[in-house]
Amino acid sequence: MKAYSKLTREELQTLVHELKKEYSRYQSMEMSLDMSRGKPCKEQLDLSMGLMDSLNSDADMCCEDGTDCRNYGVLGGIDEAKVLLSDMMENNPANIIIYGNSSLNVMYDSISRSMTHGVMGNTPWCRLDKVKWLCPVPGYDRHFGITEYFGIEMINVPMTPTGPDMDIVERLVREDESIKGIWCVPKYSNPQGYSYNDETVRRFARLRPAAKDFRIYWDNAYGIHHLYDKNQDYLIEILAECKRAGNPDLVYKFASTSKITFPGSGIAALATSSNNLDDIRNQMKHQTIGYDKVNQLRHVRFFGDIHGMVEHMRKHAEIIRPKFEIVEEIFSKNLGGLGIGGWTKPNGGYFISFETMEGCAKAVVDKCKKAGVKLTGAGATYPYGKDPKDSNIRVAPTYPPIDDLKTAAQLFTLCVKLVSAEKLLAERTGEAPEKAEAQA
Amino acid sequence: MKAYSKLTREELQTLVHELKKEYSRYQSMEMSLDMSRGKPCKEQLDLSMGLMDSLNSDADMCCEDGTDCRNYGVLGGIDEAKVLLSDMMENNPANIIIYGNSSLNVMYDSISRSMTHGVMGNTPWCRLDKVKWLCPVPGYDRHFGITEYFGIEMINVPMTPTGPDMDIVERLVREDESIKGIWCVPKYSNPQGYSYNDETVRRFARLRPAAKDFRIYWDNAYGIHHLYDKNQDYLIEILAECKRAGNPDLVYKFASTSKITFPGSGIAALATSSNNLDDIRNQMKHQTIGYDKVNQLRHVRFFGDIHGMVEHMRKHAEIIRPKFEIVEEIFSKNLGGLGIGGWTKPNGGYFISFETMEGCAKAVVDKCKKAGVKLTGAGATYPYGKDPKDSNIRVAPTYPPIDDLKTAAQLFTLCVKLVSAEKLLAERTGEAPEKAEAQA
Repeated sequence: MKAYSKLTREELQTLVHELKKEYSRYQSMEMSLDMSRGKPCKEQLDLSMGLMDSLNSDADMCCEDGTDCRNYGVLGGIDEAKVLLSDMMENNPANIIIYGNSSLNVMYDSISRSMTHGVMGNTPWCRLDKVKWLCPVPGYDRHFGITEYFGIEMINVPMTPTGPDMDIVERLVREDESIKGIWCVPKYSNPQGYSYNDETVRRFARLRPAAKDFRIYWDNAYGIHHLYDKNQDYLIEILAECKRAGNPDLVYKFASTSKITFPGSGIAALATSSNNLDDIRNQMKHQTIGYDKVNQLRHVRFFGDIHGMVEHMRKHAEIIRPKFEIVEEIFSKNLGGLGIGGWTKPNGGYFISFETMEGCAKAVVDKCKKAGVKLTGAGATYPYGKDPKDSNIRVAPTYPPIDDLKTAAQLFTLCVKLVSAEKLLAERTGEAPEKAEAQA
Repeated sequence: MKAYSKLTREELQTLVHELKKEYSRYQSMEMSLDMSRGKPCKEQLDLSMGLMDSLNSDADMCCEDGTDCRNYGVLGGIDEAKVLLSDMMENNPANIIIYGNSSLNVMYDSISRSMTHGVMGNTPWCRLDKVKWLCPVPGYDRHFGITEYFGIEMINVPMTPTGPDMDIVERLVREDESIKGIWCVPKYSNPQGYSYNDETVRRFARLRPAAKDFRIYWDNAYGIHHLYDKNQDYLIEILAECKRAGNPDLVYKFASTSKITFPGSGIAALATSSNNLDDIRNQMKHQTIGYDKVNQLRHVRFFGDIHGMVEHMRKHAEIIRPKFEIVEEIFSKNLGGLGIGGWTKPNGGYFISFETMEGCAKAVVDKCKKAGVKLTGAGATYPYGKDPKDSNIRVAPTYPPIDDLKTAAQLFTLCVKLVSAEKLLAERTGEAPEKAEAQA
């Protein structure tokens, strides 16, 4: 295929004309597909239906230490859930708190606590003139939503295939005491599916922030969410690395079973240093008597141990791997060599990240929407919803059935082609795309 | 029986001597009983084991509107859970949010939100010099724990058998703009088991607080937790009454299924005006994607409807009613006419409140503890753990098996007698109780 940028004005006009005809065909199909969120599909959810039988009315509802899980108490989670989740997170059970149904909620609560009560004896952030936060971009919209809600100023840091640009991270946290945290999805990142390499993790563990109450929010949401048996990304365990670096309190590490069993009905966990845990428990004890221990027990009985969980994740991979592959195949076939977009090819996680030419993302998402395919809003992967180049689109292939996904991917590539061709044409004619199009 | 106050010094000396011998007998029994918290007993928990079968691996996991409860979404709870809980709370399903496993957590989050973001556009409390709170006393220690944690100044308001002293409540909220809320357990109150009468509720609904962001925290924890089929307390529904009084936004009303199914593994709810709900949802959407819908569905399928829940509560009552009655019987038999203590006789809820002579509560709780029976700490029913008269003890009869409970109640009355006799003796001799005792 010829790169679009090499096409003459006339060739572009013809192309736009043809693409529009094709787009009309899609519109007439009156599709209604939602690819906006990273949701497991029905077949994935079905994998965990055994969870509903792992505690029945004859079950022994006591955990290993004899505690009746049906009653009040056990603030930090039952021991066997700590063991299971710590195996999943590669941490010590003594350094883990088991929470309720959402790790996002744990992150929110953590920032809320820091606002009202401060971190380990430091000034509560609500009393500071300014609190800032580093946001590797593109990133996870719900992370940015929390910091925005608390009025925390977000600073973009570019992502690279090996993690955030650490030169920038190191300089900023060293120089600015008002920077209190950074959002990280270190493995199969949202949306690019990048995993931090060894050097990035080591540099994170050796950060020397000006702020004593700076914390890395290490959201390891996709720690065991591989697509392949081979080609699995590996991540240095951050808490151990921080300890080795003499920085034991630097990180809060989050995880959950949301994309392992049922999103919203799983269990979440936080792993961190003993100092941080003491600080957090001092708040938690006022917030609740305890989280849902029955659901913790249900998960432990269902999986047995980490091996059971790993086997379970293999079944997830079998369902979603073909979806990632079909998207990759269609993108390659339809867009390869055209020079109008690039995309990531992750080994795990829930997303593919697409980069359009500058200024095209919003238009592509709009065009898809008008033909019945809802994507994550353009800009959502940036703080304040503002993608400075208007070029990033998050593609979430897991939820739709594979035939729908094929159609959606075809439509997506068509929209990329159409928007790109219109833009290039407008540049040739020196007009805004809409006008150039009218002339075409 | 002769009132202790009428006894001579010699009679008191003999009495103390005898009571001490009896107390030694209890000590030698080496009991280990926990009556410190309002926990359901094993038999009560067994009532809800059907909950574990209400969703099995063959279950239809979709709720009535077709939403798959196993996946993300539905921030405010599934419709059928709203219907069930709104029937339980006597409110409109449109005015309810279904939360996670703990209404205490909802109250905590509500105060936390008010601290950082304010109530319906008003100044966030963390920016105010002073925030105060009214606390009917005696009351619930975990309520007081939340306000204390947030540095909110707590003001004691005396409870009466018909509710808080409303003259004081009305005056304080009218005069002081820094008073932002009041803790209420309006039905079968913790710890006295009192229910607010019609006049109290009407006066609450007609409060004219100086602070626009004043809210009544109406924790209706025991709304359907009756001990008797007849003799049930009735409470005017507060949201409807507030609406009638032209005060629609005045109340947050909380409830949960903690003492209906499994504490910590139930579902919680908040009912309030549309304005308040909008305000709250605006925060919630950043905190979480949604609460545990599978558990919501599980509860709906288990109970069917409010009638199923009411029948279920009748079974709870059958188990715990004899426990309340045996305590009452032993208290009456052992302490009647002695003039050294009074106690409440509630028609529902989880507690009996005991009033010792002034300055005796702490000593009674200590003596019980030394003989192996753990009670709620003396003072716990007051803000900052400070009972100004050192006279209130919360008795929680539901958890221990009935034979243990009998022994514990016997021991309790013995300790009340011993501590009271020692105190009276000390007053006669003009000495501190310990010294007088040594002389006796």
